Parts: sequence; structure tokens; C-alpha cells
Amino acid sequence: MAGSKYAYVKNFEIPDPLLPNTYMVLRVDGHGFHRFSESHSFTKPNDQRALELMDAAALAVMQEYRDIVLAFGESDEYSFLFRRSTQLYNRRQSKILSTIVSYFTSCYVMNWSKYFPSTPLEYPPSFDGRIVLYPTEKEVRDYFSWRQADTHINNLYNTLFWALVQEGEMTTADAHATLKGTVSGQKNEMLHSRFGINYNTLSARFRKGSVISRKTETPESVPPDESDGSKRKAKPKVTLEISHVDIIGDEFWNEISDIL
Amino acid sequence: MAGSKYAYVKNFEIPDPLLPNTYMVLRVDGHGFHRFSESHSFTKPNDQRALELMDAAALAVMQEYRDIVLAFGESDEYSFLFRRSTQLYNRRQSKILSTIVSYFTSCYVMNWSKYFPSTPLEYPPSFDGRIVLYPTEKEVRDYFSWRQADTHINNLYNTLFWALVQEGEMTTADAHATLKGTVSGQKNEMLHSRFGINYNTLSARFRKGSVISRKTETPESVPPDESDGSKRKAKPKVTLEISHVDIIGDEFWNEISDIL
Amino acid sequence: MAGSKYAYVKNFEIPDPLLPNTYMVLRVDGHGFHRFSESHSFTKPNDQRALELMDAAALAVMQEYRDIVLAFGESDEYSFLFRRSTQLYNRRQSKILSTIVSYFTSCYVMNWSKYFPSTPLEYPPSFDGRIVLYPTEKEVRDYFSWRQADTHINNLYNTLFWALVQEGEMTTADAHATLKGTVSGQKNEMLHSRFGINYNTLSARFRKGSVISRKTETPESVPPDESDGSKRKAKPKVTLEISHVDIIGDEFWNEISDIL
Amino acid sequence: MAGSKYAYVKNFEIPDPLLPNTYMVLRVDGHGFHRFSESHSFTKPNDQRALELMDAAALAVMQEYRDIVLAFGESDEYSFLFRRSTQLYNRRQSKILSTIVSYFTSCYVMNWSKYFPSTPLEYPPSFDGRIVLYPTEKEVRDYFSWRQADTHINNLYNTLFWALVQEGEMTTADAHATLKGTVSGQKNEMLHSRFGINYNTLSARFRKGSVISRKTETPESVPPDESDGSKRKAKPKVTLEISHVDIIGDEFWNEISDIL
Repeated sequence: MAGSKYAYVKNFEIPDPLLPNTYMVLRVDGHGFHRFSESHSFTKPNDQRALELMDAAALAVMQEYRDIVLAFGESDEYSFLFRRSTQLYNRRQSKILSTIVSYFTSCYVMNWSKYFPSTPLEYPPSFDGRIVLYPTEKEVRDYFSWRQADTHINNLYNTLFWALVQEGEMTTADAHATLKGTVSGQKNEMLHSRFGINYNTLSARFRKGSVISRKTETPESVPPDESDGSKRKAKPKVTLEISHVDIIGDEFWNEISDIL
Repeated sequence: MAGSKYAYVKNFEIPDPLLPNTYMVLRVDGHGFHRFSESHSFTKPNDQRALELMDAAALAVMQEYRDIVLAFGESDEYSFLFRRSTQLYNRRQSKILSTIVSYFTSCYVMNWSKYFPSTPLEYPPSFDGRIVLYPTEKEVRDYFSWRQADTHINNLYNTLFWALVQEGEMTTADAHATLKGTVSGQKNEMLHSRFGINYNTLSARFRKGSVISRKTETPESVPPDESDGSKRKAKPKVTLEISHVDIIGDEFWNEISDIL
Repeated sequence: MAGSKYAYVKNFEIPDPLLPNTYMVLRVDGHGFHRFSESHSFTKPNDQRALELMDAAALAVMQEYRDIVLAFGESDEYSFLFRRSTQLYNRRQSKILSTIVSYFTSCYVMNWSKYFPSTPLEYPPSFDGRIVLYPTEKEVRDYFSWRQADTHINNLYNTLFWALVQEGEMTTADAHATLKGTVSGQKNEMLHSRFGINYNTLSARFRKGSVISRKTETPESVPPDESDGSKRKAKPKVTLEISHVDIIGDEFWNEISDIL
Repeated sequence: MAGSKYAYVKNFEIPDPLLPNTYMVLRVDGHGFHRFSESHSFTKPNDQRALELMDAAALAVMQEYRDIVLAFGESDEYSFLFRRSTQLYNRRQSKILSTIVSYFTSCYVMNWSKYFPSTPLEYPPSFDGRIVLYPTEKEVRDYFSWRQADTHINNLYNTLFWALVQEGEMTTADAHATLKGTVSGQKNEMLHSRFGINYNTLSARFRKGSVISRKTETPESVPPDESDGSKRKAKPKVTLEISHVDIIGDEFWNEISDIL
């Protein structure tokens, strides 16, 4: 074959299988989204449309890749948890990482005009990604707690920061200086006393981020097939649910314990 | 800090630096593009618009990432060669791989309507990617020869195959059977005798694929700066050139020897 | 500094940390021990001295490396299990692998003359090694079951094989041919009927391999320090026990459950 | 087969091939040799017997592993360079690393009594090891220059340090304080003026370390085979040479250019 004398270059491809029976978390992150959000005039501190677009892309990823059982998104990042036993692409790291990040990106760009109908894309947005392996459920749960705690910290800060700038007419430098060293209680208090904002009544999407879980519902009773009267095997119904609930406490994890 | 008790999960992120001073080739491949090309009615054996869209996305990648010095594309794949000494993202594999594949995907989707104005995207296209390291120039050159030889083999086959189907009114099964075991000479002969096609006169884009190289031109003389008469340092002008030339022979490599 | 212009070569050392919180099993294997056992006239099918020497080397490794909690040896191989949370050498793979294999080898050679007082070493024996990670206890247990099942299979085969050769005066080729395709029951039966050997009465060391576990005993009561009458903190006593017991069933694992 | 239900644990063994066509340098280092050298009363600043023992072990490694073309040793470390194209153990990292380190250790312990006839081993010495890949000859050469520059720096320091302690009757703390911040010229001067030592006349082994290279000599003329008068193919004669020469300058590398 014409190409065979060159085919030896394939031998330089090093296999990269991920350790079997560990939990994979793949996180995508907006690349240079500080600039991207300014170029496209994202509302501060949170842009509902931008967050919904992220959710839509993540939902599409989970519809396409059935071995993803849970996802969590905030700001310009999304984390996807795979079933421990997934054999997707034989657990090849580069293949999984590149394909999922590419598909997420594609969904983001394709759906842009639906969420930003009057804001054309100025330039192509991109995302980076990484895969982290966790051997036990405890680390998986702590990983998602880590991200949701991060959501809270960032959102409280940003909510107050932009209130100081937008309503308090501070410069951004002054706003940062004002917030420096404050703890959560002080930030809550300032929000309330200065701007009349009760933090806990803000949109759960902003405070808690977005959670997408794959729920399997086995129908309790299945009527016999009418055509021949035989018993049919109940086909479990799988649904993807998006919510903005607490995932740090036990309740969430007890409910979805079957997916881990 | 609220999240600090969970932050230990970051320790599970394993560093993944690529060996310094080796050539990186990053190849992106259309994911499931057999189906994608059918869903979007790509012309067979080659769709000029689809190839130009790939070229446009690759060109955008090279404009954004200056350490890519050469790229080669055919069908639904593109290979990018980085400068040996690149320090992009500290040579972290996942970061480089995911970001470039994401950016390529983003450019592909954003530019779709320009090349397919009357064909809406039916669903989000995606690409996978991998990075392969090569220690020497010889392997780099053989890698690109391998891809161009592959272009030739596939295109000759596909050109004849689709001639048999479209003009010869064969079934695809019969066309495959007819071609089985034939060598290049026989295929050329069949193309000519049955369909009056002289393979070598077909579009170079189809026969040779697309080559994008980064050319650095140092202006030979720079006039003195008029404001103060001092000599100015000539700023080398970098241009990206797209062509469909042979990259297996020596000529191409002699010309671009400075980029390796 | 004189060497500083060359020190950049250190940058080519790629970090190789093992995934945290996973079980490490490090297995050492005799390198070319078929030849080594013949050169040093090991008794067939089992050489008690050679096995005791392996045990001695493994015991020394466990005395030196406190994070190894369990070891299993058979023939010319030994497997070492580390505590899941071990931070030995910051979990650097090459460092752990090379140091332990080196220490094992050193102990083997140093102790040779104790177990083979009248057989000088003809040439330097060596061992290779590998580290395998297991995320859960189940796999760890199955790993050790796999090795002990292997011990049984090999020992039954070898016991009968060498009986056929040594007592039955068969050639080795004939002995292999005789055994080909036989199952365990048939081998047991042949051993008994032809050679009067009841397999189950053979030395447990040969049939079960060697198990070394680290036992932690917390003294129930500690008398007060006589010098000042103060209560002393009970220091747990750690002992290494070597045995030749079944490690496939539950009993063994229930007893040592605290070490996992 | 009895063990087959457990054999799945083998799937957790991750392949670890080293990038093809790169230079491998494997360095072994004495583990805890500060203590080891004190326990065994090594002469300071250099123990001729200990260095010769290291050389003997390294020589044995090179006799056994033909793909090692160059080695350099100083103090308690030795570096081995493999032929770029070596296929030893299919370039599996763990296999190569563990086997060579084990063999080196074995040779060290077996040969101990030859070099230390009246000093029994107090406890088993061990070595750690690592493999570093270098893509080009330049880095390989700089690697060895780095080690030899290190030899020089350490030896000059140690020679003066021990002269201050042994002949100057300083405490080790005072000796370190005296040397702090001095440059090479000052150390040479102190050695000469205080102790009458001309550094350059010290043993080359101490100043330059040990170099072992594999020399291939093709006999210039081969007499015809007498039995049939036919021309015989000259079989190249390979010899291992140990020396204590400069390997930083060009001369050494020009001479051995054929091995790279």
C-alpha cells in the first residue's frame, strides 16, 4: 500500500486508558470567558440567558452520552460524572475528553441564537476540559460539594460587588477594597442594610448552580400487552431533571443513591 | 473558607505535561461524520463546501494559536503541528487538546452557514482529537506523508466508487466488489476508460488535501524611521498560506525548513 | 554555578504520582528464574529453602516499609499491598517501585548463604516489578485470590509433573503430554493412585503460598509509669505474622478487616 | 479454570510504553547512602573501594544489557544511556526500570566482599531509580555534562571540607562555615596554600567520575576462512571501556559519535 512505509508513525500513539472502576469527572470551563462575557454584554452579576445556554448544552451532552449520570454547572463551567463502570470509548482519556468537550462546544454555539436572539456571536467561544478520577463515592460527593460551595462564595461576592458598583456607584476598585476581608455574615448584612436585598430570596439558579441528574423510574405496574395478553417487561424510564437544589447535604445523595 | 474542607479533591488532578522539546501533532477527526455527511447531503465523493469549511476552521485555529506552524487537512480530519519548543499552557496535554479541539469545533459551527447557506445544521457536529509526540523531524515529515498518502488512496478509491454508483448505476455493494483487490494503476485505467476521467486533472484539493503553513518573511530592507532617522528593527511578517501541494517530496520541506 | 547551564535537563523528568486513595499492589517477580533455579539446583517441584528465602526477603521489606500491610508470595514472586492512604515518597511511582524492588533484591542476595549455605551464587539474581492500582477492597481481595488460585493450579500441576518425571521416569515431554487437558480432580486422582500422594497433606506452604500480614494489637491495659505515676498512652504493638492459610474465603479477610 | 473469575484484576494493569525513538537515561541512586557510608566506615572524601564497587556493578549491568551504550558514575549514583532505538522489553517503563535497578543492586551486594573483604554488610543497601527521556543528542550530552559538572563541584567541596576537618582539625560546622560562599578558585587556592594539595593532581576517578562506553571495533581485515577459502564477514568486536575522562568537551563525543 502506498502509505505503508509511513504507517510506522502510528506507533508513537501512546495508549491512555483510565483506571477501571473509578469515577470520572469531566469538567469543562469557558476559555477566556471574562473577555467573552464583556464582548457579549452579559448581565452582571449573573446572566440568566448565559446560564440557561450552559444548561442547554449540558443537557444535550447528557442526552447523547448515557453513561453520564450527574452534572453540575455554575458560571462558565460544567462538571459531568460518569458511571463508575463506564466503558465509553474503552475509557481512552483523550478520546473521551476531546469528544465531550467538542460536543459541549458545538451545542453551545448552535444554541447561542436561541438564548441571545439579538446578540450575534462576535467570535468563536471555546472551552477547555479535564478529566479527574475518584476512587470512592465520598470523593465524588465532596467534589460536587466543592463546586457548589464555590458557587455560593462567588455569587455572594459578585452580588454585593455589583450592587456596590451599579447601585452604590462605586468604582470597581473601591468595591473590591470594600469587600476585602469580609466574611459571609458581613456580606449578607451589607446586602440587606445597604441595598435591601435578602440574599436567600435570590434565584436558586444563581445561589445553588444547576444540577442535572439522570433519574431512572421503574413503572410499578405494567399492563399486559393487549395484542397477545403476555406480560411485558417493564422498561425503566430514564429522565433528565434539571434543578437548583442543595447537593452538599445528605438528602440529595440519598435520593440519587442508585446512580452511584 | 466555606469550600476549604472539600478542596482536597483537587489533589486528585494528576499533572500531564508533554515531554519537552518534542514535536506535537494534534489531529482532530470528525466524530460520526459518515452519518453527518449523509444527514447534510454532502456531495460525493468530495464536497467542496465541506472541505472549505474544514479549511476555514483550521485557518482560524492557526490564527489564534501562533505556535502551530503547519496543518494538513483531508476529508473530516485536520492535523496541526506545533513548534518543537512551544510552551503553550506549559505543555499540559489535556489543556492543549481540549482547548484546540473546542476552538476548532466552535469555528466549524459558527462558519457553517457561510459554506452551507441553504442547509441548516440538523444536529451538533463534534470532533475527537489526540496528541502524538514525535522526537525528530524525520517522523514529523513521515507523519504528514502518511496523511497525504492516505488522502490519495482514499480519493482515488472514492472517485471511482462513486463514478460506478452515480454514472455506472451500480449498487454500492457491486461497486465495492468491483474495486476489491484492484491496484492504483487499474483504478486509474478504469476511471479513464469507463468514465473518461483523467485522475490527475481533478482538483488538487481533492487529490492532495489542504496544507496551511506559517510563512515568516523578513523584509530585506527597512527604511529608517523618518521621525528620528534611527534604524528600525525589521518586524518579520507572518502569513498563513493555504495550498494543495505535494508534501511527500523534498521540495515542500526545503522551502519551509525554517519552521521546523 | 558550574553545572547550571546544563541543569535544564532536569525539566525532562516527568512527574509520576499515583492516584491518591487507591490501593497499590507492588508485585516482584524473579527475572529468568527458570534458568536460575536450574543453575542453583532447586529441588523440584518446590524448594523449601528458596521459598523461605523469598519469605525472608519479603519480611524484611515489610519491616522496613511500614505502609505495607499485607504480602503474598508463591514460587519466585511476591505481592505487597500498601495502605490505601500511604504517602510513601509522595506516591511517586518510579521511586516506590525501584526502591522496593531494589531492597527486596538486596535482602535476597544478602540472605542467600543463610538458606543455601553450600550453594554459592553462580550469578546475580534479579527481579522485575510493577505497581497496579485498585480502587476498592473487592478488587484487592480478588487480586490476592487470583494469586492464591494460581499457586494452587501451578503446584498441583508441578507436583504431578515431577512425580511422573522423578518417580514415574517419564521424559518431561511425556509428562506434559500426559497432563495435557486434565482437570484438577483427575490430577488429584493420578497423584493418589500412581504415587500414593494425598495432595491435601502436602506442606501448606507449597499449596497455599505464604501470607504475611501486619497485625496491630492494642494492649488492653497499660500500667502507670512507675517513675511519676502518670497514665501512659498505650502504644499499639505491631507484629508481622507469616502463615500459609487460605485467603480466598471470608475468614481471613474478616480477621484483618482493620488493615484495609 | 480455577482462577479465571479473579483474572479480571489483570485489566487494572495500565500499559506504560516509553515514547519510541527517544534516548532513555536510567539513573540509579544510593538510597540513604549517607547513613550507609557511615555505617560501613567509607573513607572521606572518597572511598576508592566503594567507587570501584559501583563501577563493577555498572559494568556488569552493561555486560548484561547490550542496549546500554554509555554509563557515567559518581559517588553513589550511576546513569545509563540506552540506544535510541532500543526495544528492550518493548520499552515498558516499569519493566526496564525495575529490572535494571534490581540487577545493579544484586551485583553491588554480590561483589561487596570483593571490595570490602574485611567489612561485612551491616544491612541491605538499596538504590532507587528513574528513567528520563531525551529527544535529541544535545540533551543527552548536556545530561552527562550536568552529572560530570556535579562531580567536580561536589568533589572540590568535599576534598577541602575533609581536609579542614581531618588535617585542619575543624569541626564539621566550622568547615561548612568556612566554605560558605567561596567560589572554585578560592577553594583551589585554600587547598594549595593550607594543605599543599594541587587539586588537579588528585585521582581522575575522584575528579571526573567513571565513564563506561561500549566501543565497537570492526576488524580492518579478516583472513579468509581456511576451511573453504570463502570470505568471512567481519564480526565487530564490542568492548566495554572504563575511564575517568572529560565528557564535557567535544573530544569524547566525537570519538563515540557512532554510538549515538
